[in-house]
Amino acid sequence: MAKKDGVQMLGSWASPYSNRVQMALNLKSIDYEFIEEKFYTNKKSDLLLKANPVHKQIPVLIHDDKPICESLVIIQYIDDVWTDHGPSILPSGPHDRAMARFWADYIDKKWVSLFMDLDKEEQTRVATMEKIIEGVLLLESYFVECSKGKGFFGGDNVGYVDVVLGSFLGWIKANELMFPGVRFFDDINAPGLTTWVERFCVHDAAKDVLSEPQKLMEQYLMVKAAKATA
Amino acid sequence: MAKKDGVQMLGSWASPYSNRVQMALNLKSIDYEFIEEKFYTNKKSDLLLKANPVHKQIPVLIHDDKPICESLVIIQYIDDVWTDHGPSILPSGPHDRAMARFWADYIDKKWVSLFMDLDKEEQTRVATMEKIIEGVLLLESYFVECSKGKGFFGGDNVGYVDVVLGSFLGWIKANELMFPGVRFFDDINAPGLTTWVERFCVHDAAKDVLSEPQKLMEQYLMVKAAKATA
Repeated sequence: MAKKDGVQMLGSWASPYSNRVQMALNLKSIDYEFIEEKFYTNKKSDLLLKANPVHKQIPVLIHDDKPICESLVIIQYIDDVWTDHGPSILPSGPHDRAMARFWADYIDKKWVSLFMDLDKEEQTRVATMEKIIEGVLLLESYFVECSKGKGFFGGDNVGYVDVVLGSFLGWIKANELMFPGVRFFDDINAPGLTTWVERFCVHDAAKDVLSEPQKLMEQYLMVKAAKATA
Repeated sequence: MAKKDGVQMLGSWASPYSNRVQMALNLKSIDYEFIEEKFYTNKKSDLLLKANPVHKQIPVLIHDDKPICESLVIIQYIDDVWTDHGPSILPSGPHDRAMARFWADYIDKKWVSLFMDLDKEEQTRVATMEKIIEGVLLLESYFVECSKGKGFFGGDNVGYVDVVLGSFLGWIKANELMFPGVRFFDDINAPGLTTWVERFCVHDAAKDVLSEPQKLMEQYLMVKAAKATA
């Protein structure tokens, strides 16, 4: 297949890190060739091993034959290269940009890892849930501050923290399916984020990228069962 | 004490994450008030708790009364704000900038954590050493590629990856003191990095910031002993 706009992307439909790069490419209206890498297998493609020999992980963006790895690095690269393709993904002011980087880092390094514990340690699930909700309150507070009454973390436009947090929405909803009665964003804890979720999921950059929660849950349970019988 | 250039910094002499921010401020010739936060204690200052309520960790830069946290976020902020104070810390081309972010991330997330294992698991020390040396080879290869025969990762000037990796040199040398016979950078594995280490340690931005390996080792052994008898 010919490379579109000189851009190829190695990713997976089920990976939020991959999805957020797709969203960033959509925000900049970049036409790209998507190469699906099998998720949750030990067999990595030769292309992936060659393009990302250090981490051997998706996503990888290949632009003009040069690979770029790690989702947050890739998104900043996309923003840096295609400056004239629509609004910036990162905020323009240095302080706002620093805050966006800080919260993206918090989401990836701290908050999301809590979800991994939900299905691991049944006895500590309540404590894990409390920590997740503490994170929701922090994110709500940042959302209120930086959206300034507009629809997104990026203000009028979907921006950096929108795609970073938004890329996890499929998996967050899959967790709600797996643990009935649980809701992570609600009108009481996080009224701003609750409406943001609705708005983000139908946004042009996101709606065809976000995976269906039901499909993600099935994928998760299938892989879990395979591991248990391995 | 009056704030210099409107900049305060909460840090510690022994923290590489703190040291790299000091180096970045030095590169940009920013005059700042350094506030020493006690390292390795559970008693955090009220100023730190107020300035970094999410992570409660140094370093924190306070610029015009606004706190910025996380060392890599702070360095990029410094580069973004003081654009007219000397050369950029990040490379200027999008691809070079992406590579610098990728390797900074690799150093922080993967490579440095290996050193923590050296003193933990005696039986696996040889395997850990091998992994560290694998990382040295990767870093040497990136150094050769991006320094292009000049002295630093940033070319003629100390740049982003220089301060990120360079901030660990005190601790790396402290490890060489603790494990006699071990050398992490040598002429055979990493001739480029070996001369880079010498060059970096006497650079104006780094020389008064890098802590003495002997002092770091004593600090480490003191804290370790205190933990063992606690």
